[in-house]
Amino acid sequence: MKVISLNPQSRGYDINIERGAIDRAGEIFNLDRKVMIVTDDGVPRGYAERVKSQCKDATIFTVPMGEESKSLGMVERICRAMLEFEMTRSDCVVAVGGGVVGDLAGFVASAYMRGVDFYNIPTTLLSQVDSSIGGKTAVNLGGVKNIVGAFYQPSGVIIDPSLLSTLPERQLKNGLAEAIKMSLTSDEALFEIIENEGIKEHLDEIIYRSLLIKKAVVESDERESGVRKILNFGHTLGHAIEAAEELGGLYHGECVAIGMTVVCANEVKARLIEILKKVGLPYGYAGDIDAAIGFLASDKKRAGDKIDVVYVDEIGNYRIEKTSIEDFAQIIRKEIEK
Amino acid sequence: MKVISLNPQSRGYDINIERGAIDRAGEIFNLDRKVMIVTDDGVPRGYAERVKSQCKDATIFTVPMGEESKSLGMVERICRAMLEFEMTRSDCVVAVGGGVVGDLAGFVASAYMRGVDFYNIPTTLLSQVDSSIGGKTAVNLGGVKNIVGAFYQPSGVIIDPSLLSTLPERQLKNGLAEAIKMSLTSDEALFEIIENEGIKEHLDEIIYRSLLIKKAVVESDERESGVRKILNFGHTLGHAIEAAEELGGLYHGECVAIGMTVVCANEVKARLIEILKKVGLPYGYAGDIDAAIGFLASDKKRAGDKIDVVYVDEIGNYRIEKTSIEDFAQIIRKEIEK
Repeated sequence: MKVISLNPQSRGYDINIERGAIDRAGEIFNLDRKVMIVTDDGVPRGYAERVKSQCKDATIFTVPMGEESKSLGMVERICRAMLEFEMTRSDCVVAVGGGVVGDLAGFVASAYMRGVDFYNIPTTLLSQVDSSIGGKTAVNLGGVKNIVGAFYQPSGVIIDPSLLSTLPERQLKNGLAEAIKMSLTSDEALFEIIENEGIKEHLDEIIYRSLLIKKAVVESDERESGVRKILNFGHTLGHAIEAAEELGGLYHGECVAIGMTVVCANEVKARLIEILKKVGLPYGYAGDIDAAIGFLASDKKRAGDKIDVVYVDEIGNYRIEKTSIEDFAQIIRKEIEK
Repeated sequence: MKVISLNPQSRGYDINIERGAIDRAGEIFNLDRKVMIVTDDGVPRGYAERVKSQCKDATIFTVPMGEESKSLGMVERICRAMLEFEMTRSDCVVAVGGGVVGDLAGFVASAYMRGVDFYNIPTTLLSQVDSSIGGKTAVNLGGVKNIVGAFYQPSGVIIDPSLLSTLPERQLKNGLAEAIKMSLTSDEALFEIIENEGIKEHLDEIIYRSLLIKKAVVESDERESGVRKILNFGHTLGHAIEAAEELGGLYHGECVAIGMTVVCANEVKARLIEILKKVGLPYGYAGDIDAAIGFLASDKKRAGDKIDVVYVDEIGNYRIEKTSIEDFAQIIRKEIEK
């Protein structure tokens, strides 16, 4: 088993990476108490059951698959279920699912009795490489993603790549977009693996390298004031497209893929588009780009009138520049592929 | 102006105590940005307006007076209003009201965009001596108080005793109960002031001494694992009675007053009952004590089967003892005055 130990300023936790680790959750986490397992109906039911069988006393709460479950209403329903299950501050929450489940369950754990232990078992490539580290939890409101939430670190994470065997192809690509994102700002070697090698054969390595990048970023900047902004590479436009698509049409990674293409230097952009073609991710946007630009104004990274935009001029390096909404809109209109 | 500087581990802030300070909020806080002022319809409208006039760009959100406003539904409504007001992570929330407003607005501030600055201007004696310090924010759910929330420190607090001139008599007594509570565990001299002197003439001193006690406790233990438990003196039964009264019949301070009477040694209890009579607070409970005891099981301080109960054997000192729900129920039945 590979272990990445995270040491954010608030408290440390381990990311345990191993095929089959889900069946050792009872050893790796402390499940000898009441456990609220949160999952969604898109995750194979057996995953949550396998965790439940290792708990002293557990309940499974299954939410509908999709962004709509990231709501304050759902937070309330889960908290009510925890109250009915008579859970105390010494009990815990385990997420078994993708980013939606992790974000939702993490926020619930942060808020129930002002904070109970939270464990995360991400079951999608996207959540394994991305949302499993960093302590960002949130729900959506008024069509804006992640607008209500908390910075809350998990007490432990299990990354079990064998869980990805049931993942639909499109979901796998969705996660690869984030790995490509991290390689572009921080790891040319990772970019070249994805560019030149077989993806499925190198999946464990892609996950591990992506996690190492995210760890380095998150540890150097737990509260997203500085270097953590590079994780938003491709996300400023990406989130706006997601909002314009009304949280439905395109996947997060697909939006990020499109978002990256407008903030790369020409040479990088050419290689990026080739890699997106190889993987099967979109590299242009046929939708209403003006609608997406309209959503930029409510982007939560906005501070005053300017937003921090991450640009990549050469693979493995980045540049953060304060850009006005107007200037960024112009860049998007110029660079976007139709 | 008296200033008490708080230095919890996470970040520091000042409590500014001065008659008339509400009209200097623009100097004391940074209101040169978008400001969401949260108040309730029991607070004189002029208070929020006086704060608004000192802001660059402010909106007042008025919730109905009472515990019912401490709900996730209200959190959602305020967050929506902040979104519509296009507030960003650099903007702030100001609470102008009692404990309900402070708890609600503080939780909103902690969660909106995962945290914006929060300022508190408590307008009741209870919130001035108690909830203005400590960083505990929360809303209620399923009839249980403060079950969903966050530990979130304000960026600044203004205590303006002149605001209490409009406070109903019963609300003033409600706050005195908390001052009496703090004197019993920690400050015999404060107890004697309330016991022997004119209350209204000594109000500023009572507030200041109470805040010094709370500061000392909170700083030594920001996360309520140890000494902070003394703030719960009288609250274990107090909260249970509040729950049994369905968040309506009795005020918080009145429930705490009753709650204190069952956890004092005989001699202390005799003096406490005299002081409660003098102030005009209840010292016995004619309601259904078994219903209150039933609510103890869901009390959030419970860890496993035993709860930490704070006892006072002599004024100014305390003892914390793990007590089973059953034993505590027996103590309550023996000690409660009808």
